[in-house]
Amino acid sequence: MSTAKIFVEGSWQPSAGTRTFQADDPRTGEAVGDTFPVSNWDDLDKALTAAAACDRTTRDWSGDRFAALLDAYAEELEARREEIVNLASQETALPVSPRLNDGEFPRTVNQLKTAAGESRDGSWSTPIIDADNNIRSMYRSIGPVFVIGPNNFPLAFNGISGGDFAAAVAAGNPVIAKAHPAHPGTSRLLAECLEKALGKTGFPAGFVQMIYEVAPEDGLKMIRDPRLAAVGFTGSQKAGVAIKEAADALGKPVYVEMSSINPVFVLPGYLEDSGDNLVNEFSTSCLMGSGQFCTNPGLVVLPPGEETPRWIEAVRGRFAEAACNPLLAAGVKSSLLNSIERLVNAGAQLLSGGKPADSEGFVVQNTLLQVDAATFLQNSETFQQEAFGNSSLLVTTTDAEQMAAIADALEGQLTGVVYTTEEPRDEALYRDLEPVLRRKVGRLLNNKMPTGVAVSPAMNHGGPFPATGHPGFTAVGLPASIRRFAMLECYDNVPEHRLPAALRTS
Amino acid sequence: MSTAKIFVEGSWQPSAGTRTFQADDPRTGEAVGDTFPVSNWDDLDKALTAAAACDRTTRDWSGDRFAALLDAYAEELEARREEIVNLASQETALPVSPRLNDGEFPRTVNQLKTAAGESRDGSWSTPIIDADNNIRSMYRSIGPVFVIGPNNFPLAFNGISGGDFAAAVAAGNPVIAKAHPAHPGTSRLLAECLEKALGKTGFPAGFVQMIYEVAPEDGLKMIRDPRLAAVGFTGSQKAGVAIKEAADALGKPVYVEMSSINPVFVLPGYLEDSGDNLVNEFSTSCLMGSGQFCTNPGLVVLPPGEETPRWIEAVRGRFAEAACNPLLAAGVKSSLLNSIERLVNAGAQLLSGGKPADSEGFVVQNTLLQVDAATFLQNSETFQQEAFGNSSLLVTTTDAEQMAAIADALEGQLTGVVYTTEEPRDEALYRDLEPVLRRKVGRLLNNKMPTGVAVSPAMNHGGPFPATGHPGFTAVGLPASIRRFAMLECYDNVPEHRLPAALRTS
Repeated sequence: MSTAKIFVEGSWQPSAGTRTFQADDPRTGEAVGDTFPVSNWDDLDKALTAAAACDRTTRDWSGDRFAALLDAYAEELEARREEIVNLASQETALPVSPRLNDGEFPRTVNQLKTAAGESRDGSWSTPIIDADNNIRSMYRSIGPVFVIGPNNFPLAFNGISGGDFAAAVAAGNPVIAKAHPAHPGTSRLLAECLEKALGKTGFPAGFVQMIYEVAPEDGLKMIRDPRLAAVGFTGSQKAGVAIKEAADALGKPVYVEMSSINPVFVLPGYLEDSGDNLVNEFSTSCLMGSGQFCTNPGLVVLPPGEETPRWIEAVRGRFAEAACNPLLAAGVKSSLLNSIERLVNAGAQLLSGGKPADSEGFVVQNTLLQVDAATFLQNSETFQQEAFGNSSLLVTTTDAEQMAAIADALEGQLTGVVYTTEEPRDEALYRDLEPVLRRKVGRLLNNKMPTGVAVSPAMNHGGPFPATGHPGFTAVGLPASIRRFAMLECYDNVPEHRLPAALRTS
Repeated sequence: MSTAKIFVEGSWQPSAGTRTFQADDPRTGEAVGDTFPVSNWDDLDKALTAAAACDRTTRDWSGDRFAALLDAYAEELEARREEIVNLASQETALPVSPRLNDGEFPRTVNQLKTAAGESRDGSWSTPIIDADNNIRSMYRSIGPVFVIGPNNFPLAFNGISGGDFAAAVAAGNPVIAKAHPAHPGTSRLLAECLEKALGKTGFPAGFVQMIYEVAPEDGLKMIRDPRLAAVGFTGSQKAGVAIKEAADALGKPVYVEMSSINPVFVLPGYLEDSGDNLVNEFSTSCLMGSGQFCTNPGLVVLPPGEETPRWIEAVRGRFAEAACNPLLAAGVKSSLLNSIERLVNAGAQLLSGGKPADSEGFVVQNTLLQVDAATFLQNSETFQQEAFGNSSLLVTTTDAEQMAAIADALEGQLTGVVYTTEEPRDEALYRDLEPVLRRKVGRLLNNKMPTGVAVSPAMNHGGPFPATGHPGFTAVGLPASIRRFAMLECYDNVPEHRLPAALRTS
């Protein structure tokens, strides 16, 4: 069987790499589908040269042209929708419906179209003209961007179709995408759609390229290469920190979206009034997609009181009853089991699950753990390490001070939630918690689970380190996300005909 | 003689540090003025605790209150203008007039007032309300900021009165300022004015604090401390890179403005038509303030042709004739002499100067060096190391390709200049050079020296690494510079009464 080709220099070419891999079917654990190449440095070098050459042509193109590409791509995707969602489901074990066909696919297409609209509109670039001083500035493209997608969204965060991809292209940058090796076939389908769109809109070869996998040392070499201008990454903290370090050392813009446990604080009034609803809301949010979301509620801090044990027992029942669905990959399963073991060893009590499910494939039992606040606080670094998957840790407290102390001990998070009434008891506690929590999280929610990340201009899918690398940027939310892949360009005393169109006055 | 006190916790207190220093008079090289302390960790720890405590109070204050502080400060400075500019001149040897009294002082006051206006206006925070999804976001203060000022602007970039200070306060953050040890007396005067302004506007103790000097290891410890939210630095590349590395490892926002040689490309048509004017313009720009500007033109790339030797000879004459003024400090003098030696050892020819001047104080002869492009290109890293002071390197080329190759070999810069006519010969060369130069510089100029950095909303005083740490941010230019010291805060389903005022709809 021949090895799949990579998409470089505008065409499908054999990889120069000698290693290969296959994706696994998460439902069976068996390797399925085609053999895909692990690219070596020769592949990356070729892609970098092509991207840099392409950039010299496209960098002066107007937003309209990048918009046309994004729109054409969305159209090509629509034409192969069924094929795409079916293959994505096969490779990830995520259900076609509602997840892929009704949620992620339309979201992906919508993101591309919205990014097209913003690229056409151009207000993301904030042109400023100071006519008195004859000084003008705006944000413009930065050059080739390396976009590294995660395992958990085969479409909406894929390196070749997701939010970082859309933002980098909308800013006018060539993209080298690294598909995730958990869904290479899906990524190839997407790249085939993109190839058509590139052709229809007249882009030079190399504007978007895709590889499937690289060895970490080659990936870091690419990040350090002067032909590469910026990096977008979604994935694990370990990989993200290594990528960030390599780019930071050269002052190269790098946006890493890493781990987050998305703490949920339940205030006593709310638990009393609406605890039953919360059992349902929390269990659904936590177990949906086998918990494989950046914004999965991985830590729930509970108030003291007689409601609490009843609530915990109800959640335990839900976790035990709910179906256990496959995780995305063998590595996700082993990592989740390791994380559960680490939490138990640190003193957490296993209320439910904790073991591989009694079925084939990458399935772990729905896992609920509990720890008291004093134990949590003695070892807060360990207890807030992400356990990616269908698992959550409940923390019981004896008073409001413990709740505040937990908020204080938290690292940076994508989201933080408070379930609260507006009655005085909760309101007073909210006033104590909010200032601490606010600076720790990118998005603060009230009475709502964090797992939905709306594509809204007001969205912040970001947050303080180690959730991301910088608390001033968002990966979702247009046009803000575009600004990441741009540089500020100032023109001082430059004649009109040498200015970008947006900075001309006549 | 007693050691000066540091300004912490809202009052003047003795430093716990045991080491001290005095500033030198650059005109004589002799130590003058009071003895100032080198702060130790106890001082920094105290300042961090006070800043964090203050932040809990002030973080919810409206922009009006930070604006009131900045305006009151500007007023207090005006009241002591003469004293300030005289002492600054004594400590730096920069002339009272026009530099300090007519340039830097009004610029400083103007920056503070403009920042006040932007803080009051609040548009820098870009509030976005998505009513349909009930999601809202805006940029808000980030927490205590460490502002480290440079040697070369005792007022306009001082840690306690400059652009970074104004931006950090306008965003609503407490500031811990490190004054530069080359002008401690001036910094103390400024802090005295600020103390009055803080009192008049009702700020809690610790909103702004100032130390004079710290050992590098203590400074880095402070940068790593969780109580500190962000860092602004202007100074040498060596210090800046160490600061950036410490902050980056924790994903803490850090803005470093470091070295830049600000290349000037002279195209043949311009040299022929206006070479005489350029002799004057360049010599003035290069020698002004003894060349101690971040945007000093340190590299001039000249076209081939018979005009070039004449032009070089004319500049050499100007450098030889012009008065040599003192440098800011002993370290600046020794560093400049070392840099000149490094350039000569690498193959540059000394056309003028190159030695300590035959006078007391920190004076180096106005220095002009020349190298041919082939030699430059063989060793471009060495030739583009900044020689901070009254010195510049001329590069002669044999053809347009060499000029383009030099542009291609450049590292990131704050500015880049092209002197050019709009006649076809220059225009064609401009079209070749511009794409390369554009991505290397924060501000691209035509026919204008880079040394003036107008306080304009369109200004970009930033640029690709190693000029700064990120090409998307500017240190000058309001309101853009404020955004650096802020985080993006999103509110999802949060009731009106718990929202910041700017995000409420009723």
